[in-house]
Amino acid sequence: MTGDNSEFSVIDRLFKPLAGLTAEARGLIDDVAVLGAREGYDLVVTTDAMVEGVHFLSTDPLDQVARKLLRVNISDLVAKGADPYGYQLLTAWPKGMAYEGKAAFAAGLRLDQDEFDFDLFGGDTVSTEGPLLLSITAFGHAPVGRALSRAGARAGDHVLVGGFIGDAHLGLRVLRGEFDELSEAHKAHLVQAYRLPQPRDDLAEVVLDHAHASMDVSDGLIADALHMARASEVALVIDLDRVPTSAAARAAIAQGADVTDLITGGDDYQILCTADAAGAEALKAAGFYEIGHCEAGTGEVSVISGGKVIEIEDKGWVHV
Amino acid sequence: MTGDNSEFSVIDRLFKPLAGLTAEARGLIDDVAVLGAREGYDLVVTTDAMVEGVHFLSTDPLDQVARKLLRVNISDLVAKGADPYGYQLLTAWPKGMAYEGKAAFAAGLRLDQDEFDFDLFGGDTVSTEGPLLLSITAFGHAPVGRALSRAGARAGDHVLVGGFIGDAHLGLRVLRGEFDELSEAHKAHLVQAYRLPQPRDDLAEVVLDHAHASMDVSDGLIADALHMARASEVALVIDLDRVPTSAAARAAIAQGADVTDLITGGDDYQILCTADAAGAEALKAAGFYEIGHCEAGTGEVSVISGGKVIEIEDKGWVHV
Repeated sequence: MTGDNSEFSVIDRLFKPLAGLTAEARGLIDDVAVLGAREGYDLVVTTDAMVEGVHFLSTDPLDQVARKLLRVNISDLVAKGADPYGYQLLTAWPKGMAYEGKAAFAAGLRLDQDEFDFDLFGGDTVSTEGPLLLSITAFGHAPVGRALSRAGARAGDHVLVGGFIGDAHLGLRVLRGEFDELSEAHKAHLVQAYRLPQPRDDLAEVVLDHAHASMDVSDGLIADALHMARASEVALVIDLDRVPTSAAARAAIAQGADVTDLITGGDDYQILCTADAAGAEALKAAGFYEIGHCEAGTGEVSVISGGKVIEIEDKGWVHV
Repeated sequence: MTGDNSEFSVIDRLFKPLAGLTAEARGLIDDVAVLGAREGYDLVVTTDAMVEGVHFLSTDPLDQVARKLLRVNISDLVAKGADPYGYQLLTAWPKGMAYEGKAAFAAGLRLDQDEFDFDLFGGDTVSTEGPLLLSITAFGHAPVGRALSRAGARAGDHVLVGGFIGDAHLGLRVLRGEFDELSEAHKAHLVQAYRLPQPRDDLAEVVLDHAHASMDVSDGLIADALHMARASEVALVIDLDRVPTSAAARAAIAQGADVTDLITGGDDYQILCTADAAGAEALKAAGFYEIGHCEAGTGEVSVISGGKVIEIEDKGWVHV
């Protein structure tokens, strides 16, 4: 597929079809989007950018980069209990980037817009001497006053996570040539987790109904637990032995991956939340795993294993 | 001023004070913003990015770059008749960028947030191997169904512009060493227009009440008139002799600037709108200049001078 690579041609041929027939986008023929108020709902807004060489690899296929970009933003929304609505897109294309790459990127957006019923409303497109940079400001709706925050955890709360931790981090390492002796199926599982996270939109409603605090895990389980602990002014205690891991991750551990890497690596896009005892039961019935509890504190996280506190050296996550 | 240059320190020390006490921002301790619905109003949304070396010069002071970034977004909103509300901010800092530059940038945001009663709601901050990139997704409120579009122009409409055209383009050329014989006052006027455009929030209400189509001029008068003509499916006729210019611009023309450069250069951030005869009178009473009219057509712009059609070679605007 080839085409006129000018800004206006790219907008006309690649982005206008993504704006479809939504009233909000005005067909992208105007320079603003207009969002009507939805009575009884707040608009939940999040911005997440991805930079080539930092948040994705130059070798990652651009349709998958597009889908990951949408998914990390949708993940933020559903972790707050919000219903995904639509987005503004910023693309900063490297000078000389071919039309084909832009078309592949737009094709990926198309796939996941349909998958998550999520529409393009508008945005901007620029060029840069630097690496490819992509950013979305995403919108969702939550019932008035009910969008969850990471600041809502209380001492005595149970701490839960919505799915496997560590797969994406291990997938990145597989792409870099590590864990060569893993089965092809395990490698594929881990790489898929890295390239194409699955936003837990299936869990948004139960989180809205039962969680006190909620966020998605993007910087690593421990780093994000620390964000929650600080915002909530409590202490979170995470039991490493209860953190759910996939069969592929356990196989990687058997081949030398350190289990603490799984909880300090990033890109999980699982929901981390807290709830009281009754809420925790409802969340577990919906598929959550209980991994710890909250105590009185001033923004600490401690990790225990075999009943003892263990030291985690690298609590933050440095991108790629 | 020095400081810990880590992502979290920059957010804590520079951006959290900008989020202030608005409920929407949740003090930036959460990872989403939450915007309550304003009954009777639509949310008008625009995204505009600026890249070092493309949209601003490496030598431009960063506090002024910040102010320009806010202003170009606010300009988009007020041209639609919207009341500026707040924004999401994306910063992509070049690796190794000093804390001082980030602090200057934040200081510029502070100044114009106060000037335009415009609040930071949230955003993302990343690093890049490339040039500095800054992007805002800005929000404003307009009465339900009344936000103006560039698609509303009708045959028979008068075409008006809210202020001087060409100053910013000439200011950029002054910064590059052209027009050396201009007075210091004229040079300062032109450079100021380039570095610090003035969003016409004073004109938002009259535009809302009287315009059929409206947008701000960012790509150059002729290029944006063409956007309006195409979106509205009419022909716009611009009378070059009636396009308002400043004394400084006229002095630059006397020193060799081509008058057609003024209408093809960019960065004016004046409001371009159309209205019927009565609306045009109201707009002129508020300070607008009438510069042409709309005819039946299919998306053309023609320029006349001395009563004759003249050819404009470069209708688009190439950034810096």
